[in-house]
Amino acid sequence: MNKTVDSSIVKLTNYRSVWGYIHKNKQATIPQISKDIGLSLPTVTRAVDYGVAEGIIEPDGVIGAERGRKAQVYKLHADYMHFLLIYLDADVLSYRIHDFRSRTIGSGNMPVNDKNVLSALEKIIECSAASDPLLSIVSIAVSGVVCDGVVKDSAAFPSLGGMDLSKHINRKFGMTALVDNDLHAASNVARIFSDYKNDVNVLFAFGKRKSGAGIIVNGDVLCGAAGAAGEIGNIPVYTPDIESERVAFCSERLQAIIALLNPKRVIIYELDEGMGTDKLISLIKEKLKAYLLPEFKLGRDFFEDCFKGLSIMCELEIKRSLRERLDF
Amino acid sequence: MNKTVDSSIVKLTNYRSVWGYIHKNKQATIPQISKDIGLSLPTVTRAVDYGVAEGIIEPDGVIGAERGRKAQVYKLHADYMHFLLIYLDADVLSYRIHDFRSRTIGSGNMPVNDKNVLSALEKIIECSAASDPLLSIVSIAVSGVVCDGVVKDSAAFPSLGGMDLSKHINRKFGMTALVDNDLHAASNVARIFSDYKNDVNVLFAFGKRKSGAGIIVNGDVLCGAAGAAGEIGNIPVYTPDIESERVAFCSERLQAIIALLNPKRVIIYELDEGMGTDKLISLIKEKLKAYLLPEFKLGRDFFEDCFKGLSIMCELEIKRSLRERLDF
Repeated sequence: MNKTVDSSIVKLTNYRSVWGYIHKNKQATIPQISKDIGLSLPTVTRAVDYGVAEGIIEPDGVIGAERGRKAQVYKLHADYMHFLLIYLDADVLSYRIHDFRSRTIGSGNMPVNDKNVLSALEKIIECSAASDPLLSIVSIAVSGVVCDGVVKDSAAFPSLGGMDLSKHINRKFGMTALVDNDLHAASNVARIFSDYKNDVNVLFAFGKRKSGAGIIVNGDVLCGAAGAAGEIGNIPVYTPDIESERVAFCSERLQAIIALLNPKRVIIYELDEGMGTDKLISLIKEKLKAYLLPEFKLGRDFFEDCFKGLSIMCELEIKRSLRERLDF
Repeated sequence: MNKTVDSSIVKLTNYRSVWGYIHKNKQATIPQISKDIGLSLPTVTRAVDYGVAEGIIEPDGVIGAERGRKAQVYKLHADYMHFLLIYLDADVLSYRIHDFRSRTIGSGNMPVNDKNVLSALEKIIECSAASDPLLSIVSIAVSGVVCDGVVKDSAAFPSLGGMDLSKHINRKFGMTALVDNDLHAASNVARIFSDYKNDVNVLFAFGKRKSGAGIIVNGDVLCGAAGAAGEIGNIPVYTPDIESERVAFCSERLQAIIALLNPKRVIIYELDEGMGTDKLISLIKEKLKAYLLPEFKLGRDFFEDCFKGLSIMCELEIKRSLRERLDF
């Protein structure tokens, strides 16, 4: 038996219970926490001290009778919530739980289809929320058109079509739920390249069966009136979409994007191995004048960047809601 | 002989000379103006009083010996300059002079070709500046790709290719020169439709031989890295570009734009009469899902809106330079 590991797990579990109690009750004192969750005063004090040192919780005034002993009240920093990130790809649901420093503290995946997608989604949220009381936001990337939390159109999940997934989750679990298209979610990562001034960056992902784009203008991900900006499936293409012509087919779509938007940078992801990005780029170079050519960058891993983007969405939401609270 | 008209013309000419003198000398007193341009003190006083009443000029302190008679100094309001607006279309140069209230006080046009375009442009600027001392900004719309005042590429005027037209005019005539693509210039008009929040509006102009687009995102006209955003000539199109298929050809390009950007509104201009916008729209409605369809609006007159856009560019430039001066 490895005592060190075990004791640190116990410690972490205790700490989380303390922080979770503060989170749920908005604010609490050490004696109150100790009494309600059944941990000793020294343990609760250690958890609170550690939380304050880490910036996770902060003192929030004192309460107590005028002559009686006064107790320090603690509250959770709004910045230090945990996030549940979910990527609903065509046939698999992948999830990660991030702590307040974007460290992954839980993850998993399960096969999904149109029939079970909603129940699978609800189950993951329910289990995650039960096991992690600090969880406050869930952000979901869906392969499909999403507008203001509503899934407008999804080839993989027709049953979600027209559903306000954001409102549904919020009502059922009391959590803030952010829902967006997978390419839009991943585009948040490319914001860091943007100098926020008349600047266009494009994300382009292509694989054997899928392709998509995300557009960042002046530092913001472009959504479009119905959430469908970057949905390239409806761009008319001359080359037939057959296996032997797949790269040429995708390069024509990317050519249309570059011709129309004249982006500074295009970040290309291969969704399947060995798609031939070099050929894709050289086909575009053949067809467009030199001054129209963007800087091409290779995106390493679309899956990873999608999760990074989901995490950025959560951080932006926390900032937004903080600003809103400060405005009132 | 119509005395009223003649005397008012003389009055206007006198007024303009007075204001022009103040403009050229940055500031001036009434005796100084009267002496230097040879108009009587009462005439100059009337011109100055009218200018102050109209907000065109304003008092700017007094000068004079301590015991001598002090004289009021006047300067011109930065807002009240005249603009020279020039539209360089494929074979004709059209120009208008706007006063500070966007009233056209002069206009004309002349045929141009690649050989004489620069000399024609210089001549118009020179003559306009000589006849109107209040002229301070010239804004030029060019059929071609323009980036930061540099004409990158123009099928109609290859001789201007690579030329920093803005700097050239500024050096030669001492005037602020704004140069932009014609579609970008006209797109300024559509800014008024934009609610500045995650909003995409598209201008689409098509004629027998020309077609082009302008993109407005969150209230700003999209330029692109090389000024080529909205240059639709390089979008691959399936339908051949022949006369009988012209509408179908153009509708495919517009379809690509709508599919990619999911705009809220598309404003369509016919560059030649009877192009068939109805057919263009119905072809797009056949091909795209309902939630992707924007609101279609008909632009009345591209030529007029191009001039309106040039005027807006001047106003924005004055605001920008005012802000810059106030920042220091």
